[in-house]
Amino acid sequence: MKLSEFELISKLTRKLSCPSEKVVVGIGDDAAVVKLNGSYQIITSDALVENSHYKREWINNFPELYYYLGRKLLSISISDVASMGGVPEFAIINLGVSNQSEEELLEALYDGLSDACKDYRVSIVGGDTVASETEFFDSTLTGKSKGYMLRSLAKPKDLVAVTGTFGDSRAGLEILLENKPIESYLVKRFLDPSARVKEGKEALTLGVQCGTDVSDGLIFNLYTISESSNVKIDIFSEKIPISKELISYVGTRERALQYALFGGEDYELIITFPEKLLNSIERIGFKVIGVVSEGNGVFLDGKRIKKVGFDHLRSVE
Amino acid sequence: MKLSEFELISKLTRKLSCPSEKVVVGIGDDAAVVKLNGSYQIITSDALVENSHYKREWINNFPELYYYLGRKLLSISISDVASMGGVPEFAIINLGVSNQSEEELLEALYDGLSDACKDYRVSIVGGDTVASETEFFDSTLTGKSKGYMLRSLAKPKDLVAVTGTFGDSRAGLEILLENKPIESYLVKRFLDPSARVKEGKEALTLGVQCGTDVSDGLIFNLYTISESSNVKIDIFSEKIPISKELISYVGTRERALQYALFGGEDYELIITFPEKLLNSIERIGFKVIGVVSEGNGVFLDGKRIKKVGFDHLRSVE
Repeated sequence: MKLSEFELISKLTRKLSCPSEKVVVGIGDDAAVVKLNGSYQIITSDALVENSHYKREWINNFPELYYYLGRKLLSISISDVASMGGVPEFAIINLGVSNQSEEELLEALYDGLSDACKDYRVSIVGGDTVASETEFFDSTLTGKSKGYMLRSLAKPKDLVAVTGTFGDSRAGLEILLENKPIESYLVKRFLDPSARVKEGKEALTLGVQCGTDVSDGLIFNLYTISESSNVKIDIFSEKIPISKELISYVGTRERALQYALFGGEDYELIITFPEKLLNSIERIGFKVIGVVSEGNGVFLDGKRIKKVGFDHLRSVE
Repeated sequence: MKLSEFELISKLTRKLSCPSEKVVVGIGDDAAVVKLNGSYQIITSDALVENSHYKREWINNFPELYYYLGRKLLSISISDVASMGGVPEFAIINLGVSNQSEEELLEALYDGLSDACKDYRVSIVGGDTVASETEFFDSTLTGKSKGYMLRSLAKPKDLVAVTGTFGDSRAGLEILLENKPIESYLVKRFLDPSARVKEGKEALTLGVQCGTDVSDGLIFNLYTISESSNVKIDIFSEKIPISKELISYVGTRERALQYALFGGEDYELIITFPEKLLNSIERIGFKVIGVVSEGNGVFLDGKRIKKVGFDHLRSVE
């Protein structure tokens, strides 16, 4: 299999044409939106696969690994729902377990799932357990919403704003991959990202129409907005939120910026909105990092920047 | 991992306690049922895993393997929805693809998915693609319903009835596993089971309260009804529907009966219902195979029969 994840998805999904007038948003955005009895339901799904998303040996360096994998399995799906302005409701969890899967690790995973359920007020309603030579965990989540934000609704003159900080997750992954001394904040940002449910919901309530979450990297996901909305996006490096923990880990803000721009798996939100909403948007915790204009491409400090992503098919290699 | 699938699920799910008053049926039945704006939504999920549910080498004996895996991925989830009386609506498909996954096989899988979508009027609304050393395919399905049938609602004096024929699927699996000459009907009954949506919906409409589908074997799934309803079930071997193709494959009806009782993956429905509904139930395609009474256990021709199942964790070994 030589195709990257993005090519493969787009090639295969062209085959699937089973339309329904109830499907408001189908394959291609962060999650699907369907209309049910006058309200909207958001549906999304994610998988964590051994040796692709995590390595079991990390447990030697970070014993709570499976607890946090349980949390992550839920929070990355919740982030998709949050990025559309929805609130998560129900989850289905499938386990693919191998002969090497240890019962106590799976119990820790379920402890993590259970705690994340309580934190995000999600009910796990079912699931299936199957044998698999490669261990994997799969979650499907539904959420509810009175509307939805889409990647494709950015407009010229909009401002671009984000939640949280960027690059921490990539540094956390690097620490685990390279078996470095654990820097707990960064490792937990990789294994236990905060899904921005409150911020997404409040942005939608304020009337924001364009949103996504950053799973593939800040620049990459700005490109998904730029391309699907047919707009140019300018961002400014000094505006990009970066944690002091990341700067301390890599040494300088300049090096931290590379992690922030291209790192991936931040699970922060990006929204674009008309300037008149600026004060309200800042009040609910977003920070402005750029502007939208007519044209195409993503520009950093005035220079066009390449669309480089974080490809999950190649992430833990 | 020494636990069987059933023990593992029950052990781990005890950990998950994130209740919601909207969850009408949680973990443990064929699918979950949640209440949404006054109607019911059914949610279920299944996975097909290489070397657990299929072997890629079967393609040498049966070149259309991946097309039918695509159909099966959808139809086994649809069967869960059908067993509760619901009608399927939306699906999410996750692919775990390996370096050995061949693009043309995945295209065939998507062709199968796409055709099954049309047959069952399901819309695929999203999905995720991840790298996995072991290839797997995962589907989550939602359905709608005005009510639901449960395993736990069998009552003494009810009759027991089923759709279709039993044992074909197990014979189809055997043909593939032992690389025997393809008997197309039997192999397709394993790879392309018919989800009984119409029959399930009509049974529910007639007022039937107890239903399940046969994924683990007729006897095993009769036991799930018997145990969760606290009743005794008597069935009669001459009443059990067996196809002429299966009898021809194994030689005698007596040998075919063993496949029918313990085979698994039939994806036919079992319902129990009061005798006054008999004529209507027969008219919608069910055949009576037994009766419910006070007591416990499953009896064949008057003799207690052991609870032997088809454990998916050990299925393709």
